[in-house]
Amino acid sequence: MTARLRHLPDMIADMTDSLRVAFVGKLLTDAGDVAPFVIDWRKTWRGSAIAVAFPDSVEDVAKLVRWCAAHDVRIVPQGGNTGQSGGSVPPDDGLNLVLSLTRLNKVRSIDPVNNTITVDAGCILQSVQEIAAAADRYFPLSLGAEGSCTIGGNLATNAGGTAVLRYGNARELCLGLEVVTPQGEIWDGLKGLRKDNSGYDLRDLFIASEGTLGIITGAVLKLFPKPAAQLVAWIAVQNCADAMTLFENVRRNRDTALTAFELVSDVCLGLVLKHYADTRDPLSEPSPWYVLIEFTDFKSEDNARAMLEESLAAAFEAGLIQDAVIADSLAQSRALWALRERISEAQGADGKAIKHDIAVPISSVAAFIEEGLVAVKSAYPEMRPVIFGHLGDGNLHYNFSSGQGADQTMFGAEQEKLNRIVHDIVRVHKGTISAEHGLGVLRRDEADEFRSPVERRLMAAIKTALDPRGIMNPGKLIP
Amino acid sequence: MTARLRHLPDMIADMTDSLRVAFVGKLLTDAGDVAPFVIDWRKTWRGSAIAVAFPDSVEDVAKLVRWCAAHDVRIVPQGGNTGQSGGSVPPDDGLNLVLSLTRLNKVRSIDPVNNTITVDAGCILQSVQEIAAAADRYFPLSLGAEGSCTIGGNLATNAGGTAVLRYGNARELCLGLEVVTPQGEIWDGLKGLRKDNSGYDLRDLFIASEGTLGIITGAVLKLFPKPAAQLVAWIAVQNCADAMTLFENVRRNRDTALTAFELVSDVCLGLVLKHYADTRDPLSEPSPWYVLIEFTDFKSEDNARAMLEESLAAAFEAGLIQDAVIADSLAQSRALWALRERISEAQGADGKAIKHDIAVPISSVAAFIEEGLVAVKSAYPEMRPVIFGHLGDGNLHYNFSSGQGADQTMFGAEQEKLNRIVHDIVRVHKGTISAEHGLGVLRRDEADEFRSPVERRLMAAIKTALDPRGIMNPGKLIP
Repeated sequence: MTARLRHLPDMIADMTDSLRVAFVGKLLTDAGDVAPFVIDWRKTWRGSAIAVAFPDSVEDVAKLVRWCAAHDVRIVPQGGNTGQSGGSVPPDDGLNLVLSLTRLNKVRSIDPVNNTITVDAGCILQSVQEIAAAADRYFPLSLGAEGSCTIGGNLATNAGGTAVLRYGNARELCLGLEVVTPQGEIWDGLKGLRKDNSGYDLRDLFIASEGTLGIITGAVLKLFPKPAAQLVAWIAVQNCADAMTLFENVRRNRDTALTAFELVSDVCLGLVLKHYADTRDPLSEPSPWYVLIEFTDFKSEDNARAMLEESLAAAFEAGLIQDAVIADSLAQSRALWALRERISEAQGADGKAIKHDIAVPISSVAAFIEEGLVAVKSAYPEMRPVIFGHLGDGNLHYNFSSGQGADQTMFGAEQEKLNRIVHDIVRVHKGTISAEHGLGVLRRDEADEFRSPVERRLMAAIKTALDPRGIMNPGKLIP
Repeated sequence: MTARLRHLPDMIADMTDSLRVAFVGKLLTDAGDVAPFVIDWRKTWRGSAIAVAFPDSVEDVAKLVRWCAAHDVRIVPQGGNTGQSGGSVPPDDGLNLVLSLTRLNKVRSIDPVNNTITVDAGCILQSVQEIAAAADRYFPLSLGAEGSCTIGGNLATNAGGTAVLRYGNARELCLGLEVVTPQGEIWDGLKGLRKDNSGYDLRDLFIASEGTLGIITGAVLKLFPKPAAQLVAWIAVQNCADAMTLFENVRRNRDTALTAFELVSDVCLGLVLKHYADTRDPLSEPSPWYVLIEFTDFKSEDNARAMLEESLAAAFEAGLIQDAVIADSLAQSRALWALRERISEAQGADGKAIKHDIAVPISSVAAFIEEGLVAVKSAYPEMRPVIFGHLGDGNLHYNFSSGQGADQTMFGAEQEKLNRIVHDIVRVHKGTISAEHGLGVLRRDEADEFRSPVERRLMAAIKTALDPRGIMNPGKLIP
């Protein structure tokens, strides 16, 4: 019996034996142990792997990659496995190894004067925030999954979150990277420099490549002075156009003080109030739309409050806002943020959700919201819009929901059609269908349709140049 | 006589004829006309070209590239030809075409609500600043050559300048790009989005690639609200360590208000005062070092002044600074900035200069300056340090000068040895020898020595993947 004709299960058994010998104590191979690592947290995608490896050194990552390259085993890098697009789930065929970075989780060094921290890729985002805070510094990346997602995953997907308006995406927060290449070499690009033009920008090429060009094993991240105050207001507005005008006015007068500008629809607030008993409506009258604003000051909370009060007074006078409340404690600020941050889970608890992660130019946000509602309502009158997002970044989670008790089967079948309606309007406004959650397998094919032939060719050329054997995270990002 | 054996001048004549027919009215071919385009402004490098082409449309750029690819003619893209590293000068052998972007100089659109401007690559930096200002917006990229350098060149070299501390390098100011590939295709990546994760980051790969992977023909640039006030102070400090402490203190209390923090040595100030009759020392007593600080406020000049006065009062009290003057008019602010901006030309006027464009972690700046001075003085006691730069970015122009009347020949011969002394100390501090001026031919080989074998292989793989015929800006950036 030649190797070519051998049965896949036999090959898997042989591979697993060989791996066990080479990486004793750093593998899970029993099907039951492997199972949680080959499915995403929303249980949308399920794949298969011969093993899950837990290297605890960069050298071990490189050794594992060399082993896989030599044995034609494909590698799926995985951090906290919190992705929304299936990017860290292996395919359900062939020889796959899940390479978990979660044991590579040390803070290597912190330099408060340079405002940098150097970390292993497997560090949990929240622990990086906490270590920065203990050194009187601020690491601004913040998102719903911060208690379990890893920095490596944040960089592999160029995560966004709630502080992008002022501090940028994960990409802008990274000064240097360490990457294990598909050949199992270690590229040390761990520089902590604000300016460096000494060759092609490998760092930014690996960021957002979703593990398809190499495995991020370490990073130098930017830190910032710790703000003296981050003050939040919850504001009722009549419509999105007014919200946009408010954004413009506040930005013009207080550009750098403004660190968040989030949009929430009445339906979103209703879902949070319904599913979280510890929440309450901060305003006395209902409103079709709400805005959450955060002001940051490096001197004092009084400064932040004075600026926020002045901005809101001007907005009242201009008739842009109907009501507003400014948090008067950190606990109140957190409670207001919770109304925004819990929307996604509240929607999940309320029935089947159709989600979008779009961005358009900020000048198109109000028009996009209206045009999308008209188009979706005309095709699906029963569909309930659940619209919220990072208005200041032009990034909306333009979701829809059938509500509890609706016909879930029909709903699933029509999902692709509804996606298409929304994404066609995104295209008209020169937006993106993938703003901050990554392509993974979820948006891989549709994103490819958005590309021109030359863009497709450039991306394929880069993939082939760096990973000629195609062993890195197969089936993700590009078809 | 076969083509292979033909004489180069004959080939050049044939090529030029063929080009003339294809691109009538868009070429310079006479040697005298071509001459200014094959030499840099400091007259350090001189090359040769069969012609200089001036396409006035993106389609023409693409057509020229296809013509060159078909005829094995190499292409040297050129903007304002203001580079300091020889990146826009053709080699002095072979068949080269200088492709000037200067006639591709339209502003395509401006979107004040989205805070973006879309421009041709040949737009002059200063004209983009002015057009932004006319729309009540601010484009922060600012550098000495802004009156003649082009946006395309700024992006191809990832230019730095005086506003990096708050607004980032040219890379951070660019949301989208249009590029003509080495195959003569047009890649339209002209997106104006704050968040977009829909494939490999082609934009950042082309930025800082110095025309070796393609020709930037257009860009979407970020705009910002126009500041209400930009207020400048000129400050005397005893040493670099105190300057660093001052930087830290100001940043901690006024992070986002601080938009520039520049270092100037007494020698630098002396050179400017000597060579510019319209300048004067703003302080009454000499000091070994000076710092220029700029505060920006979006509300009022009073705000900016109050913050600056408070910061300086605290610094006096802490004994960090000896004297300071705050500009009380825009003219005075400009006069203080001029003391910083004219150093480079004053040094040039004063004799032969040895220049460095280094960056180190901010925590290493003071140590680097001291260690470098000790090492250089021990090898070259007669050499005069001319040290200034963007302290807040860790980026110094760590220059040396022999002064007028010194033995210029000896000086030239020893230049490489002095470079090596400085760059060895850069290496110890994990810095870069190329912070904001690019590699071009000047630092190409030395930068390559800094690279690991895996980094060299990755860069070569990318170059080969995108420009397999090697026709784009030959001999620049990588050996």
